[in-house]
Amino acid sequence: MEVTNRYITTKTHIDGAPKESLFELKTEALALSVEPGSNVVIVKNLYVSIDPYQINRMKTPGEVSHHLILLYQVRLWLVIDTYGVAKVVASGNPNFEKDDLVVGLITWGEYSVLKEGTILNKLDTVGFPLTYHVGILGLSGLAAYAGFFEVCKPKKGEKVFVSAASGSVGNMVGQYAKQLGCYVVGCAGTKQKVELLKEKLGFDDAFNYKEETDLQSALKRYFPDGIDIYFDNVGGEMLEAAVDNMNTFGRIAVCGVIAEYTDAGKRAAPDMLNVVYKRIRIQGYLAVDYLNVYEDFISTTSDHLRTGNMQALEDITSGVENIPSAFIGLFRGDNIGKKVVKLADE
Amino acid sequence: MEVTNRYITTKTHIDGAPKESLFELKTEALALSVEPGSNVVIVKNLYVSIDPYQINRMKTPGEVSHHLILLYQVRLWLVIDTYGVAKVVASGNPNFEKDDLVVGLITWGEYSVLKEGTILNKLDTVGFPLTYHVGILGLSGLAAYAGFFEVCKPKKGEKVFVSAASGSVGNMVGQYAKQLGCYVVGCAGTKQKVELLKEKLGFDDAFNYKEETDLQSALKRYFPDGIDIYFDNVGGEMLEAAVDNMNTFGRIAVCGVIAEYTDAGKRAAPDMLNVVYKRIRIQGYLAVDYLNVYEDFISTTSDHLRTGNMQALEDITSGVENIPSAFIGLFRGDNIGKKVVKLADE
Repeated sequence: MEVTNRYITTKTHIDGAPKESLFELKTEALALSVEPGSNVVIVKNLYVSIDPYQINRMKTPGEVSHHLILLYQVRLWLVIDTYGVAKVVASGNPNFEKDDLVVGLITWGEYSVLKEGTILNKLDTVGFPLTYHVGILGLSGLAAYAGFFEVCKPKKGEKVFVSAASGSVGNMVGQYAKQLGCYVVGCAGTKQKVELLKEKLGFDDAFNYKEETDLQSALKRYFPDGIDIYFDNVGGEMLEAAVDNMNTFGRIAVCGVIAEYTDAGKRAAPDMLNVVYKRIRIQGYLAVDYLNVYEDFISTTSDHLRTGNMQALEDITSGVENIPSAFIGLFRGDNIGKKVVKLADE
Repeated sequence: MEVTNRYITTKTHIDGAPKESLFELKTEALALSVEPGSNVVIVKNLYVSIDPYQINRMKTPGEVSHHLILLYQVRLWLVIDTYGVAKVVASGNPNFEKDDLVVGLITWGEYSVLKEGTILNKLDTVGFPLTYHVGILGLSGLAAYAGFFEVCKPKKGEKVFVSAASGSVGNMVGQYAKQLGCYVVGCAGTKQKVELLKEKLGFDDAFNYKEETDLQSALKRYFPDGIDIYFDNVGGEMLEAAVDNMNTFGRIAVCGVIAEYTDAGKRAAPDMLNVVYKRIRIQGYLAVDYLNVYEDFISTTSDHLRTGNMQALEDITSGVENIPSAFIGLFRGDNIGKKVVKLADE
């Protein structure tokens, strides 16, 4: 059987804010069959993850010095791999059969042709919607769980600040922190998000950073006794303001720096005197380094979801043609929670 | 008995580079007697430590947000406390007797009147010169030992970069790293210092940062395989360049940021994308937090000094009137090794 596969590519490297014109929706004829023994798996994509970090893979190679980004750089005019959930339509790999639900590295497209070595696992939904496995029970969730518990080493009662707190990772960090018994304040970029953090997700407080003229003073107001843990998703000025408000032996987990992704001129210049005198730890990390806590993460998070102690915050768009706008929207703060694009019904 | 005590004070707060005109040598008549039971100890200062961090205690209170600096701020026109070695001349404290050698928080002066609660310990020289107890076996040494071993968690064979490598802490970090079997490169500000690092202290290589137009490229040249550990004494541009050259899971111990002490405009704005993707840890610390390794530090370092595996690098000036110039010289890079001012013969 042959189908028409539509997928997204980049036409050029992207060094500033992403624009629709830099992407192209391509169409190809795709035979849904594989050579026996080839180990190739063809899947029909159901839900794909839309993540800010992808912008770093799209930059001009000379603009980035991180070998990891260069290694996994998005290649112009080719398919773009992404985390997502899919259904097997043809398999040359004995580990997968037709109609298996799978989760792993698929593509920003309607179908994915996955070679041997691609990260792919059979998916047991354990009663949760498929989208949960893209976000809250996927890599975003692991990033939140590992970043908060493993990197920040939180203690009950500590004061936790989360930036981009209504984003895919931030909202979960705040919820984990509340479950642990921390005081949690988040910042976000709209009134609606701020309300949601306080009303639906149980944050102790939240504020709209766009309404603050002085971030350092704003944090002082929300944390009169200082910040013990700052979970950083944005970098830039907010990181500077957080460092100024950290307590002694404060910990900063740097999950992402979305403010700096599209404008290197917005780099944070934190006061290193504060870093020294307050003995602050600033730790960059990637979720993939914490597969050792994956089982804990799934079991803890599933329990919280079942009991209603945690909420899944999702923002779902449909259609492959809408992937670029969904992605671009991340940098405008359009999304509330995990941004997912639905490609097909289960 | 009454003596004339001469001591150094600050006439004003110091927010930029320190200048001689901001200090004053004061003279007072001092009775060398104490009320019995007062717990006061009067000591004759022998050697005092001259440290860059003192500048932070001299700043205008509003210019610093670190409560620790504010708490221990140098007060105008009053004596300035410092680490050093002294001899007891009168004691109302049963723990000390006349002629005891002591080490602890004394003053930038010829005599110190030390109230109850001052950090002061009897000194057993264990056969080393008194100056060693001010520097290599004092707080500078502990800063180097704790910062390298406890903060950086080094492994044999790792690649270590040290800035201000001929300074009081940097030179020891390099020597500890060599003893552990690391590859060590240091930077300093003169040809003479660079030669000394290579010839006398056994650094694998060293360079004069003032001769480099592009620090990032310079580090790339000295560390073609990247830096595992950066021991930071300077902050600013060098910290940025180091971050760009760090390896995955690299560790940066921030001991001090002398480049930023007198000019907040020189703040480092490290590439946080590198911090995230390389999972870099940036850790500020203070030596005083590591008193738990003090015994190890003394025993390890004493052994290395006795066997000749480590060298004490000292820069000694005489006379209380020369304390301001010794201090100011730190910010011009005048000192080679631990800067100490001698106040009196033993």
